[in-house]
Amino acid sequence: MTFPDLLKQDAALVQARLDAALATQDDVPVVQAMRYAVQGGKRLRAFLVLESARLHGIAPEAAVAAAAAVEALHAYSLIHDDLPCMDDDDLRRGLPTVHVKWDEATAVLAGDALQTLAFELLCDPALGAPDRRLALVAGLARASGAEGMVLGQALDIAAETAATPLTLPEITRLQAGKTGALICFSAEAGAVLAGADPAPLRAYATALGLAFQIADDILDVEGDEAATGKRVGKDAGAGKATFVSLLGLEGAKNRASDLIAEAEAAVSPYGDRAAALIAAARFVISRQS
Amino acid sequence: MTFPDLLKQDAALVQARLDAALATQDDVPVVQAMRYAVQGGKRLRAFLVLESARLHGIAPEAAVAAAAAVEALHAYSLIHDDLPCMDDDDLRRGLPTVHVKWDEATAVLAGDALQTLAFELLCDPALGAPDRRLALVAGLARASGAEGMVLGQALDIAAETAATPLTLPEITRLQAGKTGALICFSAEAGAVLAGADPAPLRAYATALGLAFQIADDILDVEGDEAATGKRVGKDAGAGKATFVSLLGLEGAKNRASDLIAEAEAAVSPYGDRAAALIAAARFVISRQS
Repeated sequence: MTFPDLLKQDAALVQARLDAALATQDDVPVVQAMRYAVQGGKRLRAFLVLESARLHGIAPEAAVAAAAAVEALHAYSLIHDDLPCMDDDDLRRGLPTVHVKWDEATAVLAGDALQTLAFELLCDPALGAPDRRLALVAGLARASGAEGMVLGQALDIAAETAATPLTLPEITRLQAGKTGALICFSAEAGAVLAGADPAPLRAYATALGLAFQIADDILDVEGDEAATGKRVGKDAGAGKATFVSLLGLEGAKNRASDLIAEAEAAVSPYGDRAAALIAAARFVISRQS
Repeated sequence: MTFPDLLKQDAALVQARLDAALATQDDVPVVQAMRYAVQGGKRLRAFLVLESARLHGIAPEAAVAAAAAVEALHAYSLIHDDLPCMDDDDLRRGLPTVHVKWDEATAVLAGDALQTLAFELLCDPALGAPDRRLALVAGLARASGAEGMVLGQALDIAAETAATPLTLPEITRLQAGKTGALICFSAEAGAVLAGADPAPLRAYATALGLAFQIADDILDVEGDEAATGKRVGKDAGAGKATFVSLLGLEGAKNRASDLIAEAEAAVSPYGDRAAALIAAARFVISRQS
């Protein structure tokens, strides 16, 4: 199976699990907004969870709730990041953002409830023994809270009003929280479920996450809105420091390539079984959206 | 020990646990806002967790992380409820609300990270075996998500623009989600940690939670801002249906008294050991803040 086909197959699996989780809830606007917000996207995080599971002999059915949890968590972060008081975006995945389609109150609440849903999904008995599920809960909390994703977003917001643009170490720290922590959690999830050493996958995902953000900054300059489904040229227009502004376009592309080589080297202990992870790494810097 | 003294003692214990959880985090504005938001309050939910634990022979030290989790979750909900797009409140516990003291972005993020912290606290090994901790995670998620607290808040927001005021069954359902579910979770927590039947405590907390909300509506009419630490007369001024507008002031007081009698009856199986829970129930309808 090619990597894009595998990604699609995993995306369908995780979508079904998210739909099932939301099907039984009251049909109020906040739940409609939650259903809307968990549609679409590349589902790279879900793939990482499921591939990390496969690498450890765990079938997708026994890991899909964790993949759905990561995507619910990611969807919550996008809804809140898009709010007028944050990045103020009106377009996401080619559709109006939640606060545009509904209103700000519904967007705040839908994001809140999607975070809750993420932790609820990790309690799914299909994921295995309680201690493993609890390890996922602890890991997701660390990755997404004030020492992970929220810290990254807070640093991003602070940078917008800072007197001087961020330096390379500062923007790297910001990225490690904002997108890196959740990507690391996703890649490690299968090892956690199997009780195996997550170190190689953490090294892989640390490099992958940074490459992913550099590719995002490149797309903000080179991409088009029809393909990315979101506004482009925003960061450059706002005078924000990005990997492209700090390294130049060629420098950013070279750094991303080096990181992908690092990611590939990190999973070399798995031999041929890491083929899909390597394909994913290459996809991350070649994608158009 | 009198009930107010017990409440203070438990409040100090839970405050120390929350302070410890937040002490190690980066000193960025979002974390400062989290520390600010977890100060003060009556700590009724924390007391319920700790008393429910004591009732089952569990020492406060082995339950305090769960009490801190509930208070972190509650603090998150207050920050988000106070946002301009929600209830738009500028005063909470006698102090400026988070979005007034900082800004909206910080308030959204501090609330987000406090929700995350709540689930992280439930992973504390001091709470016992992984299956018990996981049961708390699942219970807190159910109580606070789109079938619990968020649903209640969504119904509350919807009521503000509805053509007709809510009916008594509608406002009772709203309350059961908005404040009732978390109060139930708190009262059941000790039974969950002990692997005991939580049914009597659930019945107690269901009646208590409703009485608590009715008392809140009465305070909105009869209370003063200096004592409550929040704006009063808001609901009546906004023409919102409340238990007072639907039942009248005397009718609301009688209903609250009946509910407290129900709550007391529910914990009669525990005999004298339920004395503090009964004192708490009486406190709920006699409080001035």
